[in-house]
Amino acid sequence: MFTPAPEYSGKFVTSSLASNGVLLVELCRAPVNAFHQPMWEELHAIFGKIDLNGDIRAVILASSLKLFSAGLDITAQNLFVAPDPSRRALHLRNHILQFQAAISSIERCRQPVIGAVHGIAYGLSIDILAACDIRFAASSTSFAIKEVDVGLAADIGTLARLPKATGNSSLARELAMTARTFGPDEALRLGFISQVVQGGREEVLAKAVATADLIASKSPIAVVGTKHIMLHSRDHSVQENLDYTATWNQVMLQSTDLRDAFQAFLAKKPVRFGGLGKL
Amino acid sequence: MFTPAPEYSGKFVTSSLASNGVLLVELCRAPVNAFHQPMWEELHAIFGKIDLNGDIRAVILASSLKLFSAGLDITAQNLFVAPDPSRRALHLRNHILQFQAAISSIERCRQPVIGAVHGIAYGLSIDILAACDIRFAASSTSFAIKEVDVGLAADIGTLARLPKATGNSSLARELAMTARTFGPDEALRLGFISQVVQGGREEVLAKAVATADLIASKSPIAVVGTKHIMLHSRDHSVQENLDYTATWNQVMLQSTDLRDAFQAFLAKKPVRFGGLGKL
Amino acid sequence: MFTPAPEYSGKFVTSSLASNGVLLVELCRAPVNAFHQPMWEELHAIFGKIDLNGDIRAVILASSLKLFSAGLDITAQNLFVAPDPSRRALHLRNHILQFQAAISSIERCRQPVIGAVHGIAYGLSIDILAACDIRFAASSTSFAIKEVDVGLAADIGTLARLPKATGNSSLARELAMTARTFGPDEALRLGFISQVVQGGREEVLAKAVATADLIASKSPIAVVGTKHIMLHSRDHSVQENLDYTATWNQVMLQSTDLRDAFQAFLAKKPVRFGGLGKL
Amino acid sequence: MFTPAPEYSGKFVTSSLASNGVLLVELCRAPVNAFHQPMWEELHAIFGKIDLNGDIRAVILASSLKLFSAGLDITAQNLFVAPDPSRRALHLRNHILQFQAAISSIERCRQPVIGAVHGIAYGLSIDILAACDIRFAASSTSFAIKEVDVGLAADIGTLARLPKATGNSSLARELAMTARTFGPDEALRLGFISQVVQGGREEVLAKAVATADLIASKSPIAVVGTKHIMLHSRDHSVQENLDYTATWNQVMLQSTDLRDAFQAFLAKKPVRFGGLGKL
Amino acid sequence: MFTPAPEYSGKFVTSSLASNGVLLVELCRAPVNAFHQPMWEELHAIFGKIDLNGDIRAVILASSLKLFSAGLDITAQNLFVAPDPSRRALHLRNHILQFQAAISSIERCRQPVIGAVHGIAYGLSIDILAACDIRFAASSTSFAIKEVDVGLAADIGTLARLPKATGNSSLARELAMTARTFGPDEALRLGFISQVVQGGREEVLAKAVATADLIASKSPIAVVGTKHIMLHSRDHSVQENLDYTATWNQVMLQSTDLRDAFQAFLAKKPVRFGGLGKL
Amino acid sequence: MFTPAPEYSGKFVTSSLASNGVLLVELCRAPVNAFHQPMWEELHAIFGKIDLNGDIRAVILASSLKLFSAGLDITAQNLFVAPDPSRRALHLRNHILQFQAAISSIERCRQPVIGAVHGIAYGLSIDILAACDIRFAASSTSFAIKEVDVGLAADIGTLARLPKATGNSSLARELAMTARTFGPDEALRLGFISQVVQGGREEVLAKAVATADLIASKSPIAVVGTKHIMLHSRDHSVQENLDYTATWNQVMLQSTDLRDAFQAFLAKKPVRFGGLGKL
Repeated sequence: MFTPAPEYSGKFVTSSLASNGVLLVELCRAPVNAFHQPMWEELHAIFGKIDLNGDIRAVILASSLKLFSAGLDITAQNLFVAPDPSRRALHLRNHILQFQAAISSIERCRQPVIGAVHGIAYGLSIDILAACDIRFAASSTSFAIKEVDVGLAADIGTLARLPKATGNSSLARELAMTARTFGPDEALRLGFISQVVQGGREEVLAKAVATADLIASKSPIAVVGTKHIMLHSRDHSVQENLDYTATWNQVMLQSTDLRDAFQAFLAKKPVRFGGLGKL
Repeated sequence: MFTPAPEYSGKFVTSSLASNGVLLVELCRAPVNAFHQPMWEELHAIFGKIDLNGDIRAVILASSLKLFSAGLDITAQNLFVAPDPSRRALHLRNHILQFQAAISSIERCRQPVIGAVHGIAYGLSIDILAACDIRFAASSTSFAIKEVDVGLAADIGTLARLPKATGNSSLARELAMTARTFGPDEALRLGFISQVVQGGREEVLAKAVATADLIASKSPIAVVGTKHIMLHSRDHSVQENLDYTATWNQVMLQSTDLRDAFQAFLAKKPVRFGGLGKL
Repeated sequence: MFTPAPEYSGKFVTSSLASNGVLLVELCRAPVNAFHQPMWEELHAIFGKIDLNGDIRAVILASSLKLFSAGLDITAQNLFVAPDPSRRALHLRNHILQFQAAISSIERCRQPVIGAVHGIAYGLSIDILAACDIRFAASSTSFAIKEVDVGLAADIGTLARLPKATGNSSLARELAMTARTFGPDEALRLGFISQVVQGGREEVLAKAVATADLIASKSPIAVVGTKHIMLHSRDHSVQENLDYTATWNQVMLQSTDLRDAFQAFLAKKPVRFGGLGKL
Repeated sequence: MFTPAPEYSGKFVTSSLASNGVLLVELCRAPVNAFHQPMWEELHAIFGKIDLNGDIRAVILASSLKLFSAGLDITAQNLFVAPDPSRRALHLRNHILQFQAAISSIERCRQPVIGAVHGIAYGLSIDILAACDIRFAASSTSFAIKEVDVGLAADIGTLARLPKATGNSSLARELAMTARTFGPDEALRLGFISQVVQGGREEVLAKAVATADLIASKSPIAVVGTKHIMLHSRDHSVQENLDYTATWNQVMLQSTDLRDAFQAFLAKKPVRFGGLGKL
Repeated sequence: MFTPAPEYSGKFVTSSLASNGVLLVELCRAPVNAFHQPMWEELHAIFGKIDLNGDIRAVILASSLKLFSAGLDITAQNLFVAPDPSRRALHLRNHILQFQAAISSIERCRQPVIGAVHGIAYGLSIDILAACDIRFAASSTSFAIKEVDVGLAADIGTLARLPKATGNSSLARELAMTARTFGPDEALRLGFISQVVQGGREEVLAKAVATADLIASKSPIAVVGTKHIMLHSRDHSVQENLDYTATWNQVMLQSTDLRDAFQAFLAKKPVRFGGLGKL
Repeated sequence: MFTPAPEYSGKFVTSSLASNGVLLVELCRAPVNAFHQPMWEELHAIFGKIDLNGDIRAVILASSLKLFSAGLDITAQNLFVAPDPSRRALHLRNHILQFQAAISSIERCRQPVIGAVHGIAYGLSIDILAACDIRFAASSTSFAIKEVDVGLAADIGTLARLPKATGNSSLARELAMTARTFGPDEALRLGFISQVVQGGREEVLAKAVATADLIASKSPIAVVGTKHIMLHSRDHSVQENLDYTATWNQVMLQSTDLRDAFQAFLAKKPVRFGGLGKL
């Protein structure tokens, strides 16, 4: 149905154009999208390329399998040999930082990314979803912050992003400390997702595409700026963010989009905004 | 019904004393409270004066029209002429900073400000409401973060304050990136308002006045300190805030209010707290 | 039913082992757990000791009386005599900082602390609960942020922690500025508690013990790290936290827990994690 | 000798154009430039206006009397009457914040400000000089951080800015804690001034004018940006500042100044940069 | 010569009153003041007590032996036994934090502390001196940041405080990375000390006592506030510090010291300030 | 004389092993090391590789030509075509961020980097040197922060790093705002370099190699940690840095280097530390 986008596809992740300006990126490592290093490196490379293509205006991250992801592929962990715990630590730290950078590429990509999730979403799935801007879950979804079950504190983004993205610290810590599963209704109550979509993969994808289409019809200067400023806002004080926003908009208000939108508004006509081209 | 307060009234904003110590400030630029520069400058001046009157103990910000506000008056935008984008940027930046300062005066005003909203609350309305301390919405209210529709990222406070004031980042970003309307129930689920008040302007005002009256009956040293410390808390770490609070309260615990309240509590009598006078 | 734990018990706070690795700490100053300095000093000492006992894996903080706590014992306030307000301020500041440190010891204790609350939870109760990791409330609970009623802004942690732990700033400020009571359903809507437990003290304790047991069965390296990183995350930007987490996990991934969990997972067997011993 | 600039002159501060684009602002309240509220309010107003005049490219702050300033006029202090120390504190805080804002206007003014000092520079003089960008001192100058002698910690900027502007914390604290005088050589060793100028008022003014002329000949987009970014750098981490600088320069590199300078460089011709006009 | 002060003396550190309000604290663990845990715990306890005695107005930290300190006593290091590097890390971290807290007690002590150094000052000596407010060195002194020679990065404060207290990052890093010795002239050029005092222990102590006497004659409200605000300034932005200072001085300007100093100034009489008493 | 290191060499930058563990990286784009994009991309790649080779223990950055660098090659600037200033800004921002990342790779490289400079060091040279850890200058060197001469504020690191690395803000701003040249003596007074080396390229290189050799003989765990913690310290508060250092050293104290150094110290024997291997 969608147009394949080979430039953004690899062995474990495949992409297609869902509509004009909307790219659907799907995890596709059968049977359960278990992540090993080649898979997250591929994801990293793809989001790095998306960031530089200003004609992609919104991105959907989903899975082409019967579930989103079972998390880390623990059968494929790296072994580091080093003469002492200190030297081993330097290796491990490099490894963690690269893994984090791969998942953070979703957040660093300038376009909005909508996570559309169904089936199982465990462990690394939460790190990945937390790096998306908007999250929709099919009513079939089962979530879990699995890391304490395998003897580690989640270090790829869940503990960093989830509490800031949600509104119930008690529930967030309970879920992270117990590793118990939770459904989309509890995810909604936590404030993790925008909406529960009745159904499964098909239904949640339809919702995501509709939202992405709407976003893609807006001024890309405005949308890209909104993501950029909201990320800045999360990590800075209100006054810092206001100052930064003034510095950002001192040039972004000089776009043709603003002028075109004002003229269209006054003429009561629709407006079409040009893309951002190659960045 | 309420006593006019001409000292806090102008051409586009009008104020009245709703009860002892409670000031009602109403937007009144017909037909839709569209904001142009003279209007936000007036609002700025009024909140600057409120801040210095310690006998006003709580403020309600509402609209005297059939809606809260349609947002920015885009028919009245400034034009900046400059020889290059850099020089033009310096002008635009000044303009944005002044506009931000006008809306931030609601937050900087030391007394609590309750936003009471009904009808339409679009665009700049959200920036304004986000700068209030407490928000009530009539069940008739329709909200929208309209800025991406006119080609810009909201820069007067919505993107800075809304995510910190609410509990669902996914929903906040969705609303900011799609500009779609949302009702008071969704606003409540987002965590943006305290409560949905069944009805329209009259009902939501009644709720706001009752809450403001309650606040005005408390120790003003305590209330002003609570707002001050909660604003500090939003923008600092817990430990920073605890240290700051100790420094704040090292003198604020020396008020007569504390002594009077303790004595009244032990005597099981009501207590009346004196105002703060001219600041 | 539970085994007394005299090492963690005093005159106003008493502890028992609810199960292997789960310590129940209960406030027990009749009639209403009103806090005076000896009581919070005792609490401080107990949590300081818990922190260093790595064989305690989860803590429950509750009350053995018919309510959680009525708050500060205002009949027992210190009097400071000093020749001028500045010198008096230095005394008061010391006092506040010590009181804050006592309540912050709950948060600084490395193990997760579950607040289990029933009956009345006023004033200082909220400061205490906000310093817990997870909160459950019996359906019988009545909460209030009482401080403005006694002439002061809450300075022992409520204003610092509550807004960051919850998802509705409007409601949080309303509650702090009006001192009105609110029930567990509103607390849940605020995002303050994980869940409302139907019933009273017995039922909420049962829920807390079940959750604590679950946590105590997980890798203590993982659980302790999860609390540590989530506290860091609350007070730092996402990027700061990711960097810090990499530095934390560069050694925490070298535990036997991780190896044991992976092997157990692959062998489809259960795993038992060793404690942390004396720290 | 210099052209009077009445727009930037008042009763206690007088200004003149030292050359094209260089404004000399001089303190002139005989006999010792003791600061009372009308004087610092006048200074505030003048620097507020300078900031908005983009044709002023560099500012010199000096004194027309035989010394720079003896500091605060303690014969003219405000008296605040309030019923208790807490209410009195709210008044005092407002007063301090306004006083700080007056002196910070020197720093907030977008053009570089050169402090040129001779004779006595005590107390508030240091707060003022610390808010300048560049400092030259005549060899005749005597400095002192006088505040502890009058029973207060310097609160108008010395303690905030001096340690960050200099390179010997031990000496800075010694001077602030002893209030002893120090000469220009020690000021140079502290890192407080760029250079000691042999002579008195005339000689130090000549040096300041020569430096200001040089600055005024450079691209104003570049100079204004350099001040802006260096102030940001002082108060942020290196990475924060690099990010901010990229956002600033994304438009400032679009000026005609850059193009003109490149062309002039390649043609080996001098370049003249246009002013910034009214901001 | 000086009056012994047994309350502030122990086995490895001994104190005496050098003059009214000036406490001399001397390291005295022969032969080289090598620090083991009992010694830094004793130092910690002594500075904790000094902080609470408002009649001590200035402190000198020196050595009664022929050198300041050779640094850590590496013959007395703790051994931690733990089943894996992660558990061992938790032990080590506790140990480091306690050691840091001991040395930080010098900085946390509210009175100014003058480090007076002679002979050898290696390793931990630099951590200790960096936690002092003011530093004088005898011309006989030999410094070294020794830690890289024993296989570790300095973790008790040198790397945290030294670069912020000095003015040449290149030299600071060179010294920390090479562990080479440097003399007082290079320390002065680095910005680490206020002054080189010709001579040895006796001469540098005389200089320190004279400075401490001068500080002790000033308003203690002003001196204590100056230290407090300068420490805050080091770790915050200028604007943060200005805001904090206003909040600090809103009560500290209400002291009798300010009134007495103003009256004495106007009457051209000397002023004597009262102590702060027990804090 | 030195062994060529082709793995770290390219067209514009060439490397050699100066001694065991010491890599000399030299700029070599005749005639004046003017930087264009291929040159800084090459530098970026080389420092990225150095970071991962734990057998390189210290790096020297110098020039093989008769001067260090004349700065940016302004004959080779990119042209960006875009329909409006906003879209053009997005392009420019990407460009600046990549350029910054290239120069920051010097700082991010975990080993110490010594800048050894002679001849002319203008413009980008200062950005590069500021990213080094240690700086030595030949007495022949002429420095200038040239950017305002070409119409821009320095955005590749000078304004971000130089003020934090030096100890005279007045002089730093004067140099950045006037673009005037300054010699090594003034650079030393500014606090920018460790030492002036009499002579030219040969002499300054000899000094750098001697220092690098000394560093390379120390524990690499200690040296790498010292750089890491000092960079962290620059950008964080003292308390943040102390906490971070404890977390870093909780594993780094588990190295064999510490044990070996202690044993060697007690046995009064020299110690040789093993490298870090491939990271």
